[in-house]
Amino acid sequence: MKIGIVGLGLIGGTIAKALNTKHNISAYDISNESLSYALKNQIIHKAYTNLHLFLQENEVIYLCLYPNSLINFIFENKVFIPKNSVIIEISGIKQHIISSVEQLGELEFEMVYSHPVAGREKSGVWFSDKDIFSKGNYVITPTKNNNETTLKLAEKLAKEMGFNNISYVSPKEHDDIIAYTSQLTHVLSISLVNALSTNLDTSRFIGDSYRDLTRISMINDTLWSELFLYNRDALLEQINHFRVQLDHIQHALLMNDKENLMNLMQSSTQIRQSIEEGKTHDR
Amino acid sequence: MKIGIVGLGLIGGTIAKALNTKHNISAYDISNESLSYALKNQIIHKAYTNLHLFLQENEVIYLCLYPNSLINFIFENKVFIPKNSVIIEISGIKQHIISSVEQLGELEFEMVYSHPVAGREKSGVWFSDKDIFSKGNYVITPTKNNNETTLKLAEKLAKEMGFNNISYVSPKEHDDIIAYTSQLTHVLSISLVNALSTNLDTSRFIGDSYRDLTRISMINDTLWSELFLYNRDALLEQINHFRVQLDHIQHALLMNDKENLMNLMQSSTQIRQSIEEGKTHDR
Repeated sequence: MKIGIVGLGLIGGTIAKALNTKHNISAYDISNESLSYALKNQIIHKAYTNLHLFLQENEVIYLCLYPNSLINFIFENKVFIPKNSVIIEISGIKQHIISSVEQLGELEFEMVYSHPVAGREKSGVWFSDKDIFSKGNYVITPTKNNNETTLKLAEKLAKEMGFNNISYVSPKEHDDIIAYTSQLTHVLSISLVNALSTNLDTSRFIGDSYRDLTRISMINDTLWSELFLYNRDALLEQINHFRVQLDHIQHALLMNDKENLMNLMQSSTQIRQSIEEGKTHDR
Repeated sequence: MKIGIVGLGLIGGTIAKALNTKHNISAYDISNESLSYALKNQIIHKAYTNLHLFLQENEVIYLCLYPNSLINFIFENKVFIPKNSVIIEISGIKQHIISSVEQLGELEFEMVYSHPVAGREKSGVWFSDKDIFSKGNYVITPTKNNNETTLKLAEKLAKEMGFNNISYVSPKEHDDIIAYTSQLTHVLSISLVNALSTNLDTSRFIGDSYRDLTRISMINDTLWSELFLYNRDALLEQINHFRVQLDHIQHALLMNDKENLMNLMQSSTQIRQSIEEGKTHDR
């Protein structure tokens, strides 16, 4: 298949690396540096500088852009995308993207909205790595405009990329869940690191726990501020759920309530173990 | 050297494994199962059932007990511990332990208060593993009762266990820092897991970030409720520092303040990168 990638960053580059043995991969990017690196390292087969030609010559196009650029790209180029093209976007939020694209009116091509639940604390094609996808989760949020065959194609390509589980959920469910599993997680990591007091020399005290919890505080601020703001209500709701739990621990500490503390710890142990074992939590 | 271990759990067992090629290691534990496992697997050279004999026959004794049991052990056995013995405790808090022991009156033997900053989400000698200590940090909090030669001995043994950095700090500094790097970290992980809503099926959405942040929510509730409560004031202070930072993000979200969100992310990225590079943070 002829597959094109718009936005040759960490994820775009990783998609290219994961698919380039089975398919003919080309890319379009505003950065010549990324394109020439990818060509030189045989990550892609062809680099386009002419966007219209790129859009004409590919059957499937992955849009690997930040939310704002993504919507802008479709707005500016919708008339140049051929009728039978499949456009797959891979951003971390869904409702905002889908409603924005729907406001552009009827489209002749077919949009697939999906989310490879994977990433790294680095950006750029230089850090692309097939391992990022390996055994991961790929979520597709179908809309009424999707054909079954197109969804099956997106699913097949995700499997070829190395994803283990491909799931279908509604855009709202996606955004609600991702607000908890991903966005809240990043909020906590950022806040933990920013809470470091200047008067503490922690350097000799850093253990694996702190290292693991703060790894994702090294964050792409352009991308993540968009993700946070376009999923604001769901994220704020999750922050409130978290605060309730933090209040429980704080209260137990204030009251010297050992039993309650132990209960909270037993609860988290049990829930986390169910997740580890792949069970659905039983609360 | 003849080294004894009281409490053959995860850390006691790991100390034994790390020192048993260079020293004669024996152990005392209320669990016969742990002792016979350790003997059978050549983790220790000898198991004692007679505590007084055990105390007589070892030069250095590591007390690998939870805080309450630790203080109780010294209270009950202080008259049986020989004059020249070195007793090294390895709990995760210092001020409470030191002041409790000091309230027992003058001791004939020498206590060393230290903290191997290492652990696992498992307990028991079965999970002991030298890798836990490898390249880690070992913190010693000297008191006015310590001799230089004894501290050097504790330091030498910590190096033999595989620790990379051995540092000396005051008990208060230890507790303030550990409240942030370790205890707050566990509070956040527990609260994050407990904040999981029953109506979200997150199973297909778990990525590396969530997995890393919640690993330590599988927690030994008996041990950690003691650690939390005996360092309560310092921990409550760190929770408040964290809440201030969480408020900043929440406020930026409420106000749709992208610039502020990006600033908070840039700050966490910069601080965390300094930690990664082993620099002292420059805030």
